Parts: sequence; C-alpha cells; structure tokens
Amino acid sequence: MSATPTPKPILDRVASPSDMKSLTDAELGRLAEELRRETIEVVSQTGGHLGSSLGVVELTVAIHAVFDTPRDKLVWDVGHQCYPHKILTGRRDRMLTLRQANGLSGFTKRSESEYDPFGAAHSSTSISAALGFAVGRELGMPVGDTIAVIGDGSITAGMAYEALNHAGHLKSRMFVILNDNDMSIAPPVGALSRYLNDIAAKGPFAMLKAAAEGIEAHLPGPVREGARRARQMVTGMPGGGTLFEELGFEYVGPIDGHDMEQLLGTLRAARARARGPVLIHAVTVKGKGYAPAEGADDKYHGVAKFDIATGAQVKSKSNAPSYTSVFGNTLTEEAARDPRIVAITAAMPGGTGLDIMARRFPARVFDVGIAEQHGVTFAAGLAAAGMRPFCAIYSSFLQRGYDQIVHDVALQNLPVRFAIDRAGLVGQDGATHAGAFDTAMLANLPNMVVMACGDEAELVHMVATAVEFDAGPIAFRYPRGEGAGVEMPSRGTPLEIGRGRVVREGTDAAILSFGAHLSEALAAAEMLEAEGISLTVADARFAKPLDTALIDRLIDSHAGLFTLEQGSSGGFGAQVLHHLAATGGLDRGRVVRTLMLPDKFIDQASPAQMYAWAGLTAADIAASVRGALARDKVARMPSRPRAV
Amino acid sequence: MSATPTPKPILDRVASPSDMKSLTDAELGRLAEELRRETIEVVSQTGGHLGSSLGVVELTVAIHAVFDTPRDKLVWDVGHQCYPHKILTGRRDRMLTLRQANGLSGFTKRSESEYDPFGAAHSSTSISAALGFAVGRELGMPVGDTIAVIGDGSITAGMAYEALNHAGHLKSRMFVILNDNDMSIAPPVGALSRYLNDIAAKGPFAMLKAAAEGIEAHLPGPVREGARRARQMVTGMPGGGTLFEELGFEYVGPIDGHDMEQLLGTLRAARARARGPVLIHAVTVKGKGYAPAEGADDKYHGVAKFDIATGAQVKSKSNAPSYTSVFGNTLTEEAARDPRIVAITAAMPGGTGLDIMARRFPARVFDVGIAEQHGVTFAAGLAAAGMRPFCAIYSSFLQRGYDQIVHDVALQNLPVRFAIDRAGLVGQDGATHAGAFDTAMLANLPNMVVMACGDEAELVHMVATAVEFDAGPIAFRYPRGEGAGVEMPSRGTPLEIGRGRVVREGTDAAILSFGAHLSEALAAAEMLEAEGISLTVADARFAKPLDTALIDRLIDSHAGLFTLEQGSSGGFGAQVLHHLAATGGLDRGRVVRTLMLPDKFIDQASPAQMYAWAGLTAADIAASVRGALARDKVARMPSRPRAV
Repeated sequence: MSATPTPKPILDRVASPSDMKSLTDAELGRLAEELRRETIEVVSQTGGHLGSSLGVVELTVAIHAVFDTPRDKLVWDVGHQCYPHKILTGRRDRMLTLRQANGLSGFTKRSESEYDPFGAAHSSTSISAALGFAVGRELGMPVGDTIAVIGDGSITAGMAYEALNHAGHLKSRMFVILNDNDMSIAPPVGALSRYLNDIAAKGPFAMLKAAAEGIEAHLPGPVREGARRARQMVTGMPGGGTLFEELGFEYVGPIDGHDMEQLLGTLRAARARARGPVLIHAVTVKGKGYAPAEGADDKYHGVAKFDIATGAQVKSKSNAPSYTSVFGNTLTEEAARDPRIVAITAAMPGGTGLDIMARRFPARVFDVGIAEQHGVTFAAGLAAAGMRPFCAIYSSFLQRGYDQIVHDVALQNLPVRFAIDRAGLVGQDGATHAGAFDTAMLANLPNMVVMACGDEAELVHMVATAVEFDAGPIAFRYPRGEGAGVEMPSRGTPLEIGRGRVVREGTDAAILSFGAHLSEALAAAEMLEAEGISLTVADARFAKPLDTALIDRLIDSHAGLFTLEQGSSGGFGAQVLHHLAATGGLDRGRVVRTLMLPDKFIDQASPAQMYAWAGLTAADIAASVRGALARDKVARMPSRPRAV
Repeated sequence: MSATPTPKPILDRVASPSDMKSLTDAELGRLAEELRRETIEVVSQTGGHLGSSLGVVELTVAIHAVFDTPRDKLVWDVGHQCYPHKILTGRRDRMLTLRQANGLSGFTKRSESEYDPFGAAHSSTSISAALGFAVGRELGMPVGDTIAVIGDGSITAGMAYEALNHAGHLKSRMFVILNDNDMSIAPPVGALSRYLNDIAAKGPFAMLKAAAEGIEAHLPGPVREGARRARQMVTGMPGGGTLFEELGFEYVGPIDGHDMEQLLGTLRAARARARGPVLIHAVTVKGKGYAPAEGADDKYHGVAKFDIATGAQVKSKSNAPSYTSVFGNTLTEEAARDPRIVAITAAMPGGTGLDIMARRFPARVFDVGIAEQHGVTFAAGLAAAGMRPFCAIYSSFLQRGYDQIVHDVALQNLPVRFAIDRAGLVGQDGATHAGAFDTAMLANLPNMVVMACGDEAELVHMVATAVEFDAGPIAFRYPRGEGAGVEMPSRGTPLEIGRGRVVREGTDAAILSFGAHLSEALAAAEMLEAEGISLTVADARFAKPLDTALIDRLIDSHAGLFTLEQGSSGGFGAQVLHHLAATGGLDRGRVVRTLMLPDKFIDQASPAQMYAWAGLTAADIAASVRGALARDKVARMPSRPRAV
C-alpha cells in the first residue's frame, strides 16, 4: 500500500455535501476520481466492503450534488456500499476506524450521522423506509425528498416487492435508484449520456424515456443489442412497459452509473420533474476502477487489508477450521451417504459453507436468493415430501423467516434442519449481524429441538444428529470464526436427544454452558480453581428438550448453578429457570444465575472485545460465580414467611 | 335454515375423490351444485368462512376430478376456502364439528387428512410449499404433481413473489392456480369456454393462450373490453408477456372459475402438457351461488350461523365492548388530538379496528396489503420522519415482521407503536392464529417497552401511553373478544413506564399477572380465599421494563410468587425469573412459579376451553398456588451445601 495518500485537492475542499454545491460538473467528476482513490486507500488499511463501495462512487457524488442532504433523506439499502458516502459526509477523518471498536460502523447508522437517516445492514429495507419518509413529508414533517439506493440482488426480496407495490399505490414522490451491478453488459454511454444531459432540463419522464429508446434504436448493432438486453433484463418487456411501471413507478433507464454527466443529468431531471415515485435504473460495475477488484470473482466484496499495487490481501493465519467450513464439509459427507439430504441457502452459499456441498451435489443445494420467508417454507415442503432439508441461514437473517418457522415448520412438526451460523456476537459487522435472539426465537416454540455446539467436534455430531432426526424440526447454532482447535472425529455420531455432558467435575458450583462459550466456562473454572473454588462445567448441548436430569443433579449437588450462553434473555437460561420453577427447584434457595448477553445492542469490535463489553469473558464469568457464592455465604437469611 | 338437507344423489356417491373418476363431466357439474348446497347447509349451522369456500366449489371439483389426489399434492393457500375440499375428501360426516373443540379445523391440516399435504392459515405460503413437493418429486420422492391454489390477495405478499421467482428459476413442473375473486368483471364465458374445451386435447400452452386471445378479439365490444381489462389487471401488459411469464411461468387465462367445462378442459390440458411451472388464472366470485353472500359487502367472508332462506346471521349478544373496538375508538380519539398519529394495517382494517380511524382520517391509515415485513419498516420510516405510527398487527401475523422489528425498529430505537391484537388463545381459528409468542419475541429485544392490558380500561390508558412515548418502540397486547365489562375512562391517562399496580392485597402468596388473564387471577384468589389462603393479585402491566420494585416487594412479603400470562415460555415469566436470578432473589428459597401457555400447540375450541386445555383456568391457577404452597410447607429442606 502507498505510505503517503495521493493528493486529493477537490476532496480536501469537501467537508460536507454543501461544499459540493459550488463545484462544476467537471470538478464533480474529478471529485469522484479522488473519492475512489480515497476509498481504496482507506480499505487497503482497514479491510471491509470494497467492491460495492467502488461501484457507487459516481452515484454517491451525483446524489449529494443534486439532492439536498441531509434534509433530503438518502437511504442506502444494506449500507455496505456507504464508504464513499461516509467520506463525503463529515466522517473522512475517522475512516481508518471503520468496523473497529469505538470506530465507524461498516454500515449506515442513525446515531453516527444526520446523513444516515435510516440505518441498514440487512437487505431490502430501503424502499419501505424511504416511503415512510415520503409519507411523513406529505403529512407535514420537515423532511425533503427521499432517495433509496438498492441493489439488483436486494430488490428481488419479497420485502422490496411489497414496498414497491405500496409505493406505486400511494403515488408519493420518491426516488428509488436501482444500482444494478450484476449485469455483465455495460450499457452504451457516449451518445445516450450526451443526449440525456441535453434533454435533462426539458423533458418530462415520458420524453426522457422515449428519447433514450430513440437513441437506442440508432446505436450501432452490437451496442444497441447490449442496451436492449440490458433494459430487458430488468424490464422483461420486449416492447411494452416495465415491471416498475406496472407497479406505479416512472421508470428511467438504464443509465451508466459511472458516467457522471449522465448521472447528474438524469438526477437533475428527475428531481425537477417527479411527481410520484420514480425508479432510476443505473448500471454499475462492482469493484469499478480498481483492477484487482474488477478482475476478482467476488469483485472484492469483502476484503482484508491489502496491498494497493498488487491487490494482495493480508490473510490471517488460522489455527483451527472455521465452524462454517466444518459444517459445509460435514454436511457434504453426510449428503454423500444420504440422497435425501438437500440444503437451502438464502443468497449466502459461500458464507454458510454450502458452496462446498454445491460443488459436489449441485442439484441438491438450493440458493433461493434473498428470500428467507420462502426458503423456510420451501424447506418445509421438501420435508413434507420426505426429503431431509438443511436450511442454513445466519442467526440474524433467520429472523426473516420466523413466522414460517412457527406456522409452516413447528406447528406441522416437519423435520426441517436449521443450521444457524453466526450465532452470538460476530465482530466487525456489529449489532445488526449479532446472532443474539435465535435461541429465544426457537426454544419457546413447541416441537422444536434446539442445540448449540460447545466446539467444532460437537458440530460434526450435531450435523449427524440432525440428519437422523425425522421426528420434527431441529436446529443447531454455532458461531462465526474458528473452532477451538479440538481433535476432530472422522465422522459424526448422532447425539441422544436432550442429553448434555459433564466436561469437568467440581464441587462448589456448576456452570451449565450452552454453545461455544464452553471454552470460556472452562477458562473461568481454571481461574477459580486457583482460588480454591471448585467448578463443575457441563455442556448442555440442548436448550430444548433440556437435560432435566443433569440440571437437577447439578443443582442438587452444588451451591450454585450458572447457565451460560451466547444469546439473549428468554433463551437457554430462561428454559432452565422455567424448568426449575415448574419443578420446585427454585424453592430451596440455591444460587442460580443466568449469564447471557446483556439487554443492549453491542457495537462492532473484535468478538473478544464485544464479549468483554457484554460482560461475558472468562474473568467476568469467574467474577459472577465468585460474587454470587460469596454473597450467598454471608447473606443474612431473612425470616422466611411461613407457607400456609 | 332448512331442517332437512336437500337431496344430493351424486355427492352421496363420493366418499373420496377416487369416486369422482367415473363421473361424466355433466355429473361433475351437478356434483358442484350439490357441493355448493352442502357447503351452505353446513356453514349455516356451524358458521365459518363461507364466501371463500363458495368461490372455489367448481375449482375444487375440477382439481380433484383431473388430478390424482392425495398422491398429487393440493395445497390451498390460507386454507379457509377448503370446506368443499373437506366435504369431498372423506370428512363430510364431520363437517358439523367445524372449528369446534375436537372437531375439524377451519383450515387445511396435515394431521387431519392425507388430502391436506401441507396445512395453512397464514397467507401466501402455498407456492413455496408446493415447490418443495415438486423438487422432492424430482429428487425421487414418491409424490405426484403439485398444485397450489392462491388468492389474488395472497399472491401480492412478498413471500409469494419470492416463491414464484424461485419456481420460475428452477423450472420444476408445478401448477399455481390463481383464484382471482377480487375482479369486478366476470370474464366472457361461452365462446371461450367452448373453444378451450375443444383445443384442450391438442394444443400446447402457447397455442392455448393464443387461441384465447384470438377468441377475445372476436368477442362483442363490451365483453371483449371486460376480458381485456380482466387480463390486464393481472398481466399488466397491453400486448406483451405477463408478469408470470417474465418470472418463468407458463400463463393460462383468465378462465371462468365457475364454468366446469372450461375448468376441466384447462386443467386436463395443463396436466397433459406441462413441463415447467404453469400459472392458471381463474376468475371466481366470492360467495358465488348464494344470493345473500354475493350481495353482501364482505361476501360472507366469515359468518356466524345463519338462516339459509334469508341469510340472516345469528348475532351473539355482547356484554362489553371488544378490545378491538376499544382500540379502534381510542386511537381515533387520540388521532383527533394529535395529527402526528398514523396507523398501519396489513390487510386487516376491520379486524384491527383501524377501519374506525380510517373513516374519520382516511389519509392517516395505511393498508399495506399482506405485507407485514414492509409494514413494520414503513412504520419505522414514518417514525424516523417524526410521525407517531401505530402498527396494528395480530400477534401471530406480527411474526412475519420479526426481523424488521429487530433490525429497523429496536436496533434504531425508533418510536413505532405496536398494537398487538389477538394476543393469547383465540378460539375457533385455533393454533395457527394463537398469539402465543409475541411477548417472548419482543421482551427479549433491547429498547422495547412491552405492555399488556389487564382489562379494556387499561387498553385505553396504554394507547395514551404509547401516543406520548417517543423514546423508543413500545408494544401493547390485548386479546380477541370482549373486555371484562369494567367501567371505562372518558380518556386515557399515560401510565408511568415500568410501573405495575396491586389490584388485591393478600398475605400468603402473590399472583403477578401480565395481561387479560387478570380476571382469572382474581377469580382464583376468590376461590382460595374460601380456603383460607390469602392472595395478593398485581397487574404487572409491563413485561419490559419490569416493575422490579413491585416484584421485589411481592417476593419479600409473600411465601410464593406466581407469574401469569397468556403467552409462551420466554416471555413475561422468564423476564421476572431473569430479574430474580440476577439480583439474588431466587437464593432465598421462595416459591416461584411461571404460569403460562404449555409447550404445545392448542387446537381450536372456545377460548375458555382452550385455556382449560392449557391448564390456565382460575381453578388451575388456584390449584397451582395451593399445591406449591403445600409442597413448600411440607417439603423437607435438604441439607444445603455450604457456599465456599
């Protein structure tokens, strides 16, 4: 990477978007060049979502130049493409803190800037939010225009369709910019761009579109064909209207999302003329303007720190396989033995490890797109047909399919297997991606079996358990990142349903751990051992059904029972408390504590730091045990009201 | 109603769909007539979803005649239109038990019949499930064809769009029948019908469609116009392809869903020729063939028992206003004072009581359609714009917007007000509509305030509380049905956040009730009073933030604390237990019990019966208190391990 940043004379003059108002169009073009370089230089040092950000550099400049942010509300869908936006909106000097503890979020975030009117991180929410702002304006709130920028992947989610449908119905003035970077064909630029600029100040949208189509007809053959196919990919309509028009939107496009003249012209015309909802279809290239990114398969979607000259990323050394790869490999091996195993992912084949299975069994891995609702019920249908479906969805994204889990899976007791990656705190992606709520979401549903693995070897066994379990739905959760480095079994052995295991025997108190915080429980036990406090550590394995015999034994034979989990209230600890309450296990005055994530959202940092903020380090656990036992020891026993 | 059923000689010969195979087309037509009369006669005695069922009588006969159910998998979306299907599939003799305790479900249900391969009740799941069956067949499972029947309302949900998109991508052979009953224009029938039947045995779909269009061009003007508009309402495309074709489906239609010849011809052709996914667009009339239903605004969507001759429904007398109407009226009054109040419903303006506000403030009530995901985030956008949005969604449907609640509302701490109707067990609609999980869903999220009202007067105060509360999201839940008949305040008074109230003072044990089971708690206290056990009864009002001072006082001054709620584990009781665990409140050996819904789904019955099955009657509560106190009294106190 370059030790000294390249000079950026125009960007240096832009402390906020208001400073862009005095720039000429040519200067805005140069600003975009500088902004691209700044983005590359920043991400080379921080890592992050580079490809998407590079794809929207010109779009970012054009929107801020044409619209009046922050009064006009700019909502980035997902928000991982917002680095150039952050640089332009007063956060340039903090960009090197990106995705780090106490630093800038990797996504848009309301609490970070007034230029982020609606935060994101999960996909396909922007049109709904923007419509809310638009209607708020119509009802008298002091907001200006609203602009949603949404990718061609995000717009395929059902939620985005619902929002387009409603927006078209309401006819409120708003702008949806479709950032279409999945298109292999670059649109024609020269003639169209100039023409659009020429007519920008004059025509209504119908004219603008007609003009674009007219231009298209006069382009040279191959270019014209490219333009025609480009438009049809989105519009689908050989000669007629577009899908967006059917939904009530004015449609403009496709335009070249890297041609500043074209962008400025289109946005100015749109802003001047729009009465209702307008969809502007901009074609962009992910990774644009940085050769290593443009040349890479993943377009540098998410990168580590890298060398600018070569694009070489700094790879972190790993000591143990990731939970994700253990899952992917184990499921692939099981699938080789059992033709009924199929797998479902919602647009995350790589992130879930299902790409491993897809390479070997492509016909048995289904990527449903950003469509968790459909994905879950599709899996339920497969289960009803007799298959053994594994629905692999990150914990926080599984929230999108909650009703389908309740209504289509649990209520019908269908054996859908939920492989829940990214359980617990996840690091740089922060609070939006935390897998905090899945245990509470699932363990309170009748018919569900809910597991969490104490280490990566346990994950192998849990996959095998799920394969064999046809009696109803079963879920297993595991964290992001590397395993604990334990010895791996050559093949998984199905676990007995509802049976935990004692990992360490002690006498004073017991920690009953659910999931991958088992290592912290063991570390806490080591700490306390040195103080003369002897801890039993057990791995519950199941939040549902509970190993009630184990729980009862632990509480009978220890002065205190401490549940531990990488999850929110209402989850594993609550299940244990409910059991103890129902069976009188609380009546005898044992010390019981539920150690879990605190009642707050935790911002991005390293997972270790996030767990420190959560009060769940080994030292915190040891302190909780120490404190509770000491308190119990010295506590006055209040005179106890007699039961009747 | 007619005391003696009308004769039904053909229906009497149909014990199952296999008996239909020997019927002529003319006999199938007469079967439909008999089936319609049977449906009317049944529902006149049971009440239920009449209009939808009458709309699909011919469709039901045609599908079972043409396809090979149960090997072919017929999936009814929502399932409330399935009464004719139930009559034909071996359940005729139990139809009078519809929606009653131990009777037939009002929806399709896997456990009820092999002819119900996938149950429903929530909308828009059928295409996903059917696709699962279709893919299962391709992967070797012993299932036949799959047919999803989905209404024009249900198909607008994002989930259905996701499923269409995926089905079109996979190209699996499957049939989606769009049951379009929202269309005011009846399609032309005669010529088209005959022509379709003629070509049914010959043409591929393209021909079938082209032929239909050719016919259309030759129809008399007004009829032609009707046909053209009918098609365009769905297809949207003046001359080009249809939306469904763009999504990868063959499109056939529109056809007359009450013309048996046309239906049989189309379905036979489709079955004979289809290779990939096919969408058949059938136009039907809700309430068809029963004049009082066809003439009613709601088409007898859901009816009480009624007189067949007049259509007059037996209205139950109510003693107190319904919670729904209290909410609707109160919000309307608040909206009259505060222009920032807006309301959102997902296709349930009547069911939520928002129709009351819509009549007075039509521009401030937003029906987003069957689109809970969008609805929640749209509300979040409105809140971000400075409005005071009330998002009124039934408890079980709110599950559809869970991720949006987490990601867009709670995480951003936006003041969206959630009015959660149908909390707890709901009666005839059964387990699918039970509002069991909302407290667990919401109270475990940071930033949420979660209330439940002890009676309908409290609901008035909670609406007022929510209006004034701008610090973050706030939810209040209330049950289906009548209030307790308490005196109503003329206007709501905002409650102190996190402050409960003691309703009845006692000495031995305390019930801390969250929500409308307060009346049962008071009844239990009366029962125990007679036995010499003195109960305190408190109304928690808040599951979050808890009134910890109240809880601590109750547990300090009573031998036992019993939480009570109309909800699942992981909810209010769990919050109380977590608090007690965290603060050492459990260490002193108090009797603590969490009385809540059991860990099972509870089938339809009267709400009182359902709560009896749930073990939550006043007598059950009294027994729980009595038993726990007695157990505590006589329990040996085991030798207590000393804390270190």
